[in-house]
Amino acid sequence: MALSEKSSSELSSFLQTQRTAYDELVAQGLKLDLTRGKPSAAQLDLSEELLSLPHGHAAADGTDVRNYGGLKGLTELREIFADLLGVEVDQIIAGGNSSLTVMYDTLVQCLLHGAVDSERPWSQEDKVRFICPVPGYDRHFVLLESLGIEMITVPMTQDGPDAAAIAELVKDDPSIKGMWVVPTYANPSGAVCTQEVAAALTSMPTAAPDFKIFWDNAYAFHHLTEEETKSADILSLAAASGHPHRPVVFASTSKITFAGAGVAFFAGSSETIAWFVGHLGKRSIGPDKINHLRHLQFFKNADGVREHMAKHRAIIAPKFAEVQRVLTERLGEHDVATWNDPAGGYFVNLDVIDGTASRVVELAKGAGIALTPAGASYPHGDDPVDGNIRLAPTMPPVEEVTAAMEAVATCVLVAAAEKYSNAT
Amino acid sequence: MALSEKSSSELSSFLQTQRTAYDELVAQGLKLDLTRGKPSAAQLDLSEELLSLPHGHAAADGTDVRNYGGLKGLTELREIFADLLGVEVDQIIAGGNSSLTVMYDTLVQCLLHGAVDSERPWSQEDKVRFICPVPGYDRHFVLLESLGIEMITVPMTQDGPDAAAIAELVKDDPSIKGMWVVPTYANPSGAVCTQEVAAALTSMPTAAPDFKIFWDNAYAFHHLTEEETKSADILSLAAASGHPHRPVVFASTSKITFAGAGVAFFAGSSETIAWFVGHLGKRSIGPDKINHLRHLQFFKNADGVREHMAKHRAIIAPKFAEVQRVLTERLGEHDVATWNDPAGGYFVNLDVIDGTASRVVELAKGAGIALTPAGASYPHGDDPVDGNIRLAPTMPPVEEVTAAMEAVATCVLVAAAEKYSNAT
Repeated sequence: MALSEKSSSELSSFLQTQRTAYDELVAQGLKLDLTRGKPSAAQLDLSEELLSLPHGHAAADGTDVRNYGGLKGLTELREIFADLLGVEVDQIIAGGNSSLTVMYDTLVQCLLHGAVDSERPWSQEDKVRFICPVPGYDRHFVLLESLGIEMITVPMTQDGPDAAAIAELVKDDPSIKGMWVVPTYANPSGAVCTQEVAAALTSMPTAAPDFKIFWDNAYAFHHLTEEETKSADILSLAAASGHPHRPVVFASTSKITFAGAGVAFFAGSSETIAWFVGHLGKRSIGPDKINHLRHLQFFKNADGVREHMAKHRAIIAPKFAEVQRVLTERLGEHDVATWNDPAGGYFVNLDVIDGTASRVVELAKGAGIALTPAGASYPHGDDPVDGNIRLAPTMPPVEEVTAAMEAVATCVLVAAAEKYSNAT
Repeated sequence: MALSEKSSSELSSFLQTQRTAYDELVAQGLKLDLTRGKPSAAQLDLSEELLSLPHGHAAADGTDVRNYGGLKGLTELREIFADLLGVEVDQIIAGGNSSLTVMYDTLVQCLLHGAVDSERPWSQEDKVRFICPVPGYDRHFVLLESLGIEMITVPMTQDGPDAAAIAELVKDDPSIKGMWVVPTYANPSGAVCTQEVAAALTSMPTAAPDFKIFWDNAYAFHHLTEEETKSADILSLAAASGHPHRPVVFASTSKITFAGAGVAFFAGSSETIAWFVGHLGKRSIGPDKINHLRHLQFFKNADGVREHMAKHRAIIAPKFAEVQRVLTERLGEHDVATWNDPAGGYFVNLDVIDGTASRVVELAKGAGIALTPAGASYPHGDDPVDGNIRLAPTMPPVEEVTAAMEAVATCVLVAAAEKYSNAT
């Protein structure tokens, strides 16, 4: 029976039962963590060979990778990820250990110098605004906030950002300079941006002549099922619709090899690459090409990456399955939450009754379960309905995922029963 | 006999002789390079063990260095470089592979957010200017140029920047927000900033309340003699003179281990570190801690770094000696050039007759010798007297250094003789 249909006395009894369960939970003194999308030690172990690579120190063209230079990164590694991301090798460069930093640098270049197709630096505009599909990735929002860029939210659908809403916003407002998308297995909704939505975003008229799609393909290869969803070919779509410089594409091996010591990639039109590298050359003499060679020797080729990702799937898919099992068994009958069953990525998006997300997180904390702060998936951490919670089950061992999710379910039920009790 | 004292016919004959020597040089079809301060393959080989490190993946406190986090870098590596640079461990952080990038990021933070002690972001000032001792490091000037910061030159003396000239400039002009110094074995003059000059720079009154000394200690440990010059203790001097936040200190292992895959360091007052890390945390989830652990296991401790630098010295000191020998033997008697004999660092500064530096570089190019463009050590590449040439002898094998320097000497003599011939 849905909780909302219970009588007042049924509700009271239900709340009592759940509070007892919660008290027992607290008494267990758990210390579990579902906050961050971090790989587990078992996943990191898959790349242990990297620690004793590379053998030798020469690139295919004889370049000594130990020395300075090579702003675009090791060509052979760029070739692998060009293949995987469906771009040309001259449309991609390999950088340091963090795609987040590359995103920041891209924004700073736009602010200080303007994008490749800007009339002037963005900092000379009266106002710069970005469209943020929500729920979305908190660090994207923090970047914008720290740079004084205003955020306008639009809904994230299961097919990607709400393209119609975006088209309506951007057509007359030149202050809207860009938007975020995590196109494949979005953080946190798991949504995959369809070819149709991507085509709508690349072709829509924008008042800003230099409108940018920040296409953060962080989970492009992070499949949780045997069906390996292909990302929309954003660069080709953009070129075909006459806006070749609109997308700037980010990716990394942070959740493929080592989260702290992977390789980040930046892709775009050849002109966008030249623009980026032109500014990059002022602040860098080149990336860590030894780490590039290390990754090249480890992967060997694009299939090496795909095979490696299948090993990740074998480790983390059971954890995601456990999240689904517990949520379904514990919450299904009560109609107090909805959640997605992602086909890839790192997160499960849990929507609870409006006004209870913060309470769930608070209750969980009281029971020793660390959850991402409610609202984290919204700009400024502000979820207008206080209903969204992001779950990250990759890091803990599966038995801890089970225990944590059982606890989360109890907290959701307590918060929901409290809410309905107060309302009646 | 000094070239300037030769009679017209003596000069004509001398020029003829040198032109013949130059033609023979061209006929040899040399292809030599003295342009960049890059380590040689033999130097890089000293760190070959790094390629198969680290063993294991745990920091001393148990942190898995493969995963995300640890914005300040591996504590144990910070401890080693705190020791070497004479700072406290909470005054230093370890970052990525490029101190140039850290300098850029520091400038961008100052522009977009203001320094730790700024009243407002530097970008909100009418004008931002920096003092640049010359000759200096070209990439420092390029950073400022790319960010729209104006440059004011002052002389670089053998004791460091001309502190009196700087004090006079900064005392009344609040638009002067900072200055560059390469304090130890400066690029390119080899000068070492004395404790007295450092004290004058840290204590001088400045109209800008947030004046910054960008202290790029790139060659702190790069001794060419057995006397290991100690860098001035800039942070202590600054704190003692009541300006603790004035210095921002940069260093790296780029010319200690691998030029492209070392570790960069940023140091300053504890408040400066907090300021830097606060902004860093928006754009990064942490540096490559595996590379930190790799360097830690390789060096073991501060003495490990010192012993390692002695091996570098054994390789490159003979090259610097060869530069001195050829310049002295070939140019000494003619009084057409002066040069320094650096006790450390990566460069020899060659001052030729005013108006001939570009011609020397042009002649050298014609003979297959790549030299850094004349004027490179001045803002915008503009040496007002066209007299300065930077020589970088570390990369080529010693026999190539000899051949290249013989060629350079011939070019200097041709250019000088041409100059005096035209003048008479």
